[in-house]
Amino acid sequence: MTGVDEALALIRRGADEIVVESELRERLAAKPQLRVKAGFDPTAPDLHLGHTVLLNKMRHFQELGHHVMFLIGDFTGLIGDPTGRNSTRPPLTREELNANADTYKEQVFKILDPERTEVCFNSTWMEPLGAAGMIRLASQYTVARMLERDDFKKRFQGELPIAVHELLYPLCQGFDSVAMRCDVELGGTDQLFNLLVGRRLQELDGQAPQIALTVPILEGLDGVNKMSKSLGNYVGIDEPPDEIFGKLMRVSDDLMWRYLELLSAVDMRTIQQWREDVANGTNPRDIKLKMAREQVARFHGAAAGKSAEEAFVARFSRRELPSEIPEVALEAGEDGLRLANLLKDAGLVGSTSDARRLLKEGAVRIDGERAHDPNQMLSAGFAGVVQVGKRRIARISLD
Amino acid sequence: MTGVDEALALIRRGADEIVVESELRERLAAKPQLRVKAGFDPTAPDLHLGHTVLLNKMRHFQELGHHVMFLIGDFTGLIGDPTGRNSTRPPLTREELNANADTYKEQVFKILDPERTEVCFNSTWMEPLGAAGMIRLASQYTVARMLERDDFKKRFQGELPIAVHELLYPLCQGFDSVAMRCDVELGGTDQLFNLLVGRRLQELDGQAPQIALTVPILEGLDGVNKMSKSLGNYVGIDEPPDEIFGKLMRVSDDLMWRYLELLSAVDMRTIQQWREDVANGTNPRDIKLKMAREQVARFHGAAAGKSAEEAFVARFSRRELPSEIPEVALEAGEDGLRLANLLKDAGLVGSTSDARRLLKEGAVRIDGERAHDPNQMLSAGFAGVVQVGKRRIARISLD
Repeated sequence: MTGVDEALALIRRGADEIVVESELRERLAAKPQLRVKAGFDPTAPDLHLGHTVLLNKMRHFQELGHHVMFLIGDFTGLIGDPTGRNSTRPPLTREELNANADTYKEQVFKILDPERTEVCFNSTWMEPLGAAGMIRLASQYTVARMLERDDFKKRFQGELPIAVHELLYPLCQGFDSVAMRCDVELGGTDQLFNLLVGRRLQELDGQAPQIALTVPILEGLDGVNKMSKSLGNYVGIDEPPDEIFGKLMRVSDDLMWRYLELLSAVDMRTIQQWREDVANGTNPRDIKLKMAREQVARFHGAAAGKSAEEAFVARFSRRELPSEIPEVALEAGEDGLRLANLLKDAGLVGSTSDARRLLKEGAVRIDGERAHDPNQMLSAGFAGVVQVGKRRIARISLD
Repeated sequence: MTGVDEALALIRRGADEIVVESELRERLAAKPQLRVKAGFDPTAPDLHLGHTVLLNKMRHFQELGHHVMFLIGDFTGLIGDPTGRNSTRPPLTREELNANADTYKEQVFKILDPERTEVCFNSTWMEPLGAAGMIRLASQYTVARMLERDDFKKRFQGELPIAVHELLYPLCQGFDSVAMRCDVELGGTDQLFNLLVGRRLQELDGQAPQIALTVPILEGLDGVNKMSKSLGNYVGIDEPPDEIFGKLMRVSDDLMWRYLELLSAVDMRTIQQWREDVANGTNPRDIKLKMAREQVARFHGAAAGKSAEEAFVARFSRRELPSEIPEVALEAGEDGLRLANLLKDAGLVGSTSDARRLLKEGAVRIDGERAHDPNQMLSAGFAGVVQVGKRRIARISLD
């Protein structure tokens, strides 16, 4: 493999789409240091593992020696939701934006190399653009082409309103790439259209168009929905070590492989070896321990990773879990599911009155912790190993 | 008639549409001085009678004691054609805009009362709006609603490109009304959609929505196409008195009544009386003389009006025209029509060789002036009274 091939292999890891990969190959060969951008919303700087998929991809580019730009979209943040319909998106003040930026930096520098990261704010070039510049920017795209964006198309065909300024946001994002002279822009799969607008605006500006690279949206602990704080199926990077460790030990074996590809710094050859080991009889739990320890170490340091693992093993060695745990997926309903009903629906008890009795007796554990309240409400996104006594056990997830 | 009824009668004169007339009536009754706006393109300050239809309507409001705002759209003028496709619309410099504004003022104050006219420039509020303000402005309208504009709808359905910034221009024009706190906006019939955008934006701003009043697009001397310099069927307000007089004497009788309604300061009761006089045998030429004299007087003073009429009458009394002149409409074709062919096609001569001979003999007159050259090219928009000898005569127009 040449250097470019090796670089491409790392860049391709976990990537969803690269537009256009042949251009990326040429650019890697021609230019020793590419300018790589990823944009972040300035409103919610409380990162979870879902966000780290993109940060990891930025990290890969840093490892390959490229110039990584962490762009905070403060310009649109200062505007808020201009329709005023969305009360959860009020305009932010400059002070709030600066505070958010500091929180961001603290968190992302657990993954990115601060020495090789440029933090940018798009208000730097968007504000001087002025009203006239915004009109000139808007002249560079047609309405029909903008309405090709998937969500616009659906809303337009469904006669749902699209405000005129919504057509301006992809152009602003594209103009960021022009102003930053990006070689590569990274984003989630839902960002592909916007990344392509950047390509087009750069072409019109006489620049070589950036390469668009998308990464998948990470599934949450339930393995089904996207990881999100509001669904409760997330692992926050600022959570305590034991919390991160415990949550990651609870994911299914399938999801473990997915998380390893997208979240781990372990190289893919090693991960492939682990897959073969498991096929040959290694307990997947041993791999999961490595995965959980790595993630804790990443956000809390190597020592914290080690002690979280030791604490976990000590706790579970007292009540060893079987290596094969059946998986049960249940519907939470709109209001959630009572613990007593969950036990019954999962087939771990014969009736809810059995459940109440066993809970009273302290025979029920969720993720190793004793549960007592039969009326405890569990909502969609819940995922955990539930044990009744020694033998009845299931990995239950709620949708 | 109440004062409001009288005011409404003058305002309605020649108006195409008033949205909403009942609101206008209420506003006139409630507010002694309305704020009335008309916007002008800053690129072409060479006015002809077509432009004066709108200026006359502004003058009506001044006569009724209202505050009239002459808005020069310098903000969009500074941008030019941002797509760069239209080389005839380069961005103007501030100096060019100021020079144009001075030329405008010189011309419009022949119609408007300078004491009661506020000259405004929309860059005053559009520039401070900034890129963020432009996005907020764009948030106030949906794409679907904007595409209801007739020309947008046709282009969208016909899959012809509409650049995104074109959706911003009606919003800018509407925002002018917000910034100027307009009670009434005047414009040509092609402006109705934009005037209604102003209504909506004012409502969203908590203002009473302006009343939109449109005036017709004036037909040129040919009575068919709109008056325009490029079609050659216009009367420039800076043309010499005899030129204006002669051109106006050449229009058809039908067009004369239209011009009187839209261009004259003579009240409609008098004009109605003239119509009855003509029905009872008065030569329409006598009315046309009054109309031509009034227009010359307006732009060159009363003395110039009087002497232009005297010169015209002296010239034509020597070769009196019959009171009934047949009208002939011909096709000019792409390259125009040779005078010899025009005479033959109009049936004034039997053949083009007859035409050549008669031209040589000096027997042919166009608008009283002898013509000699059989190869003289006449193009679309031409209109004139053509005489061959004493008896053969026609009012010929070319399309």
